[in-house]
Amino acid sequence: MSITYDVFRGSPEGRIVADKTTRTLEDHEVFIETTHSGICGSDEHYFKAGNVLGHEGIGIIKALGPGVKSVKVGDRVGFGYTHSICTTCEECTTGYEQYCANQKMYGFHDRDNGSFSYGAVWDVNCVFLIPDGIDSVHAAPLMCAGASVWEIFMQYGVRPTDRVGIMGIGGLGHIAIKLAAAMGCSVVVLSSSEDKRQEAMDYGASEFHVYRSGGPPPEGFKQVKHLLLCGSGDVEFAALMPLMTPRGSIYPLTVTIKPATLPLVPLFLRGIRVQGSLLASRQNIRSVLQFAARKNITPTTMTFPMTVEGIEDAMQTLRDGKMRYRGVLVRDMQ
Amino acid sequence: MSITYDVFRGSPEGRIVADKTTRTLEDHEVFIETTHSGICGSDEHYFKAGNVLGHEGIGIIKALGPGVKSVKVGDRVGFGYTHSICTTCEECTTGYEQYCANQKMYGFHDRDNGSFSYGAVWDVNCVFLIPDGIDSVHAAPLMCAGASVWEIFMQYGVRPTDRVGIMGIGGLGHIAIKLAAAMGCSVVVLSSSEDKRQEAMDYGASEFHVYRSGGPPPEGFKQVKHLLLCGSGDVEFAALMPLMTPRGSIYPLTVTIKPATLPLVPLFLRGIRVQGSLLASRQNIRSVLQFAARKNITPTTMTFPMTVEGIEDAMQTLRDGKMRYRGVLVRDMQ
Repeated sequence: MSITYDVFRGSPEGRIVADKTTRTLEDHEVFIETTHSGICGSDEHYFKAGNVLGHEGIGIIKALGPGVKSVKVGDRVGFGYTHSICTTCEECTTGYEQYCANQKMYGFHDRDNGSFSYGAVWDVNCVFLIPDGIDSVHAAPLMCAGASVWEIFMQYGVRPTDRVGIMGIGGLGHIAIKLAAAMGCSVVVLSSSEDKRQEAMDYGASEFHVYRSGGPPPEGFKQVKHLLLCGSGDVEFAALMPLMTPRGSIYPLTVTIKPATLPLVPLFLRGIRVQGSLLASRQNIRSVLQFAARKNITPTTMTFPMTVEGIEDAMQTLRDGKMRYRGVLVRDMQ
Repeated sequence: MSITYDVFRGSPEGRIVADKTTRTLEDHEVFIETTHSGICGSDEHYFKAGNVLGHEGIGIIKALGPGVKSVKVGDRVGFGYTHSICTTCEECTTGYEQYCANQKMYGFHDRDNGSFSYGAVWDVNCVFLIPDGIDSVHAAPLMCAGASVWEIFMQYGVRPTDRVGIMGIGGLGHIAIKLAAAMGCSVVVLSSSEDKRQEAMDYGASEFHVYRSGGPPPEGFKQVKHLLLCGSGDVEFAALMPLMTPRGSIYPLTVTIKPATLPLVPLFLRGIRVQGSLLASRQNIRSVLQFAARKNITPTTMTFPMTVEGIEDAMQTLRDGKMRYRGVLVRDMQ
């Protein structure tokens, strides 16, 4: 079955371009009519490559490949960073296909599929049923921003008794505060200015500290066991070390092209971990959707129409640092 | 009870100086007559500070503080990096007193106690019974070199099905090969020259590759899940990234003062961990002694007399890069 659907690409000129993609549904694929898409900083990174953008998609399944049994037409699903799995590598067989060298990864192998679109063809192994308790505007940002911070909480030994630092309040950081608070953690927010103090506390922070990258620890700062770097600045590990308890972990979650300087003596003497992490396993994408629905956790969003103008407006809002805190494109916006 | 015993210090002039220490046994302390001490690269780091050196001690308990019940006079014990525990911090109460901010750490707070000596006064919580199946010459290097690599194997998810890379064959590296092989791992050795190939294979390596720090991966190299950096050179993370599987872990185990450059994009895109680690928990020191005794794993040693001349000779051998592979000082050397 051949399907043609509308998509939105970036372009070398820095404009959004409306286009069409035609695909034949393979055995294990589904066609999803996109209704919502979150907007992520990495859409900006790929903007000029000409790809179809978007990896925080929510939509309704409209057609099934011949072999598909696990979902049905009409199901509401999320789809995100990865398009497919292979069956031969440890990463795919353990649910970590985002690390598979063979996959059709967003922005690398499948330039014609994404969630800035009216539709997408996706491997059914990489779509996720959205629980009834969460609406699509709020589910979309969980597919990347929410899943990325949730992966840290689920995989790296974060306990409800831990002090968890969140540095930078944006798309990832604001969801991290809400999720960590709901897990029972003591949530310690570090932000470069006072402006977001009240919001951070409303989201569940236990403490709010003004901290500028590279600076000394805030006065009286009590060390944290985990520190999620959710801001967009350069990473200054030497300055971060005094913020950490012994055997603490630092997670650089935003893509910074500039290599960082890592002092090995404090890393060694205090048993510090620097843990890279990209998105989440399939299981952790499923569980963040379920946890958010059960605990009534909703990202704070700004919505824009899923049109050329709407996308350009949203991207400009993001560039201007004015998104509070995750932009979501909506297809049939009233 | 006051005890006076002979110790050996480093000095600003770079000579070994014989001295005496007098101590009163506190309630929870024991006096150990030192019989053996391993020699570690960090003894060189502290050489000119004037401290009593040595943190891979083996000896016989000769006197007990009034409150000591858990060992008896005549017990053969090991003693190492940490001298005491506090009772108030998470690190000490979980057996990780090497990270305690309050402890009398070797080279920092207790300048007058060490295993380059004929005796030492130590907190009984920080001494370890040596199993019968291992002799003292072979037990000594397990107190730091062996324990440091064992900590990695025990705490950070190393499985018998994993490919484990050991970079650099020296005091730590050669024991790491033997221990990892005994755990059933596929042991992948990287060394800067062909010279040590046969020894590495004899110690249990599955593969041996010539690799120079900063260079491209050896031809046909299959990635490793864990990589222990046991060499003394600078750490070149950018070059190490292609050696690692996704979600792989790099452990810088030797103290390098020079900060390293850490590229964040491959760390993030491939979920790489950089894990600092200093020595081992009490439980892991105990278990490496037991594991080595049970599996008949012995460090490869060169012995020197525990005298001013013997220590100077041993330190020079280490400086010259000629130690094969761990020096051990022996008090009553025949």
